[in-house]
Amino acid sequence: MDNRQIVIAALPQDKLELDHFALRIVEAPQAGAGEVLCRTLALTVGAGQRAGLQGSASYAGAPRSGIVMGGAAVACVEASNAAAIPVGALVTCPAGWQDYSVHKAGAVNVVEGSGDPAHHLGVYGTNGLTAYFGLFDLGEPKPGQTVVVSAAAGSVGHLAGQMAKISGCRVVGVAGSDAKCRLLTEELGFDATVNHRSPDFRGEFREACGDGIDIYFDNTGGEILGAALRRMRAHGRIVCCGVVSQYDTGNPAPGPRGIPGLLVNNRVRMEGFLVFDYADRYAEARARMREWVDSNALKPLQDEFHGLEEAPRAFIDMLAGGNVGTRVIRVAE
Amino acid sequence: MDNRQIVIAALPQDKLELDHFALRIVEAPQAGAGEVLCRTLALTVGAGQRAGLQGSASYAGAPRSGIVMGGAAVACVEASNAAAIPVGALVTCPAGWQDYSVHKAGAVNVVEGSGDPAHHLGVYGTNGLTAYFGLFDLGEPKPGQTVVVSAAAGSVGHLAGQMAKISGCRVVGVAGSDAKCRLLTEELGFDATVNHRSPDFRGEFREACGDGIDIYFDNTGGEILGAALRRMRAHGRIVCCGVVSQYDTGNPAPGPRGIPGLLVNNRVRMEGFLVFDYADRYAEARARMREWVDSNALKPLQDEFHGLEEAPRAFIDMLAGGNVGTRVIRVAE
Repeated sequence: MDNRQIVIAALPQDKLELDHFALRIVEAPQAGAGEVLCRTLALTVGAGQRAGLQGSASYAGAPRSGIVMGGAAVACVEASNAAAIPVGALVTCPAGWQDYSVHKAGAVNVVEGSGDPAHHLGVYGTNGLTAYFGLFDLGEPKPGQTVVVSAAAGSVGHLAGQMAKISGCRVVGVAGSDAKCRLLTEELGFDATVNHRSPDFRGEFREACGDGIDIYFDNTGGEILGAALRRMRAHGRIVCCGVVSQYDTGNPAPGPRGIPGLLVNNRVRMEGFLVFDYADRYAEARARMREWVDSNALKPLQDEFHGLEEAPRAFIDMLAGGNVGTRVIRVAE
Repeated sequence: MDNRQIVIAALPQDKLELDHFALRIVEAPQAGAGEVLCRTLALTVGAGQRAGLQGSASYAGAPRSGIVMGGAAVACVEASNAAAIPVGALVTCPAGWQDYSVHKAGAVNVVEGSGDPAHHLGVYGTNGLTAYFGLFDLGEPKPGQTVVVSAAAGSVGHLAGQMAKISGCRVVGVAGSDAKCRLLTEELGFDATVNHRSPDFRGEFREACGDGIDIYFDNTGGEILGAALRRMRAHGRIVCCGVVSQYDTGNPAPGPRGIPGLLVNNRVRMEGFLVFDYADRYAEARARMREWVDSNALKPLQDEFHGLEEAPRAFIDMLAGGNVGTRVIRVAE
């Protein structure tokens, strides 16, 4: 049985390109003792995976060429040597970019079958959990506060912004196109938006932030972080979730001016986090998010590519800001 | 009765110089209703006061030329129209750089008369309180953790480092001369030190930090912050107390590279604070510090200049790193 794999052909030195990846066809693996064989239904790609190609600077560890590109999938169990996981079960697993993968039973999570399986990669997957713990645990939103989200139409941002609205906050989204900005206000309830590509970004940002920012949910770093730092209110919180402005380059920019001085003057807390540290509370978060989704208070968005071979293009396009919501690659039915 | 005043003659555009100050002699003020007249015994100068000359970027508000230079003093009450404050009482007050000042009763604090009055400007004043709340509330030290303090022989740093030792931590001090480094290890119990002017500062710093930093108590910002960011352990805390590397210049440096990426990867919290926010807990902090001082676990250091007219020189020299411990200017007996 053939197993298509997309491997890292070469590590990027600067911008990631299609030819950093290659298609390879191998024999599908077999499940060993205590293992399950998973057939990939859909993959998702996230900006954090680009950091994983940068080497030791990333939490993902040092990358190598010649290995299957990593990534989260929703999959169907085709064969099982684990009593707890029946054949036919729907699971999430770190499949990587391939049709078939084997995992220890402890590495897969059986998920409920109702609804679109891809939601287990988005709102109920890493994206939703990241938005949830970043906003609530680090941001600590209170009604009436002003929350700014960068990459606000992105996989995590569109969920974080909506959760801030659910918390009674005024929410300002920063996104990279006027179409995205319209989507945020017209479909997702954001109070204001700013296009960071606007020639007068700083002025528009200042105006949108009104009396200042209580919580800045930062998915980008870079220029937008620099602008937000200057608008933080006393005792504000900056949730450091991602640094998409700095992933797809071999030459990261210097940090924003005013660190640490502005943090001192305004008593600002700036904190980084990784969602994996909250694994023992995923169930709590998923239960709340499911309520919000079911009541239509939280609208998870996804955009789709079709076919495993499209994964590199889907990933590179997402790094350039092409996605709206969770980017999903449909691999099989 | 003459009142000598040192006024801000001109605001500095770049480095602060002696001729930014001028001596002026005026008639001493008189206490109005509910006010007290204070005679300055000793002043202290702190690096944060330099930030106060930089304009709107500072928490101290916009500065002006032609006004008396601000600053904390310990003083003797010469005349009182406030029942709670007797003539002859020893007080701390925001006297500024002058012999006599009047204050509303609520703006002065009566202090105990035992010991050197200047300790009320150092360990029991803003310096000690800043070290205490920064280290304990933001840093959250636990026994066995590694704590790094910059400007470690400075007014706040030498106290923060000793408090970290009292907490059972391994303490690394960063200072600007070999003599300061020796003082820290030989007199104050620091475990290791690094001279930030050493040609191999980065290498020596890395070695001194061992397995990494749990708490970085940052008094400097700049290069030392950049080095510390790269050595933070997972879930480490950076206490943003001051930015002395950036005060005495008209051209602040960019922020350190790796912000916010390193904060995300290592789940680091970076938080600024101002001691004034903790005013309702000063008594608690002073009581604990007094126990430590009385048992010799905490050794407050001060260095001294004599004469009000020396205040500008004492201040400028301190900005260049000339001080060890709290810098005190003795004005009168």
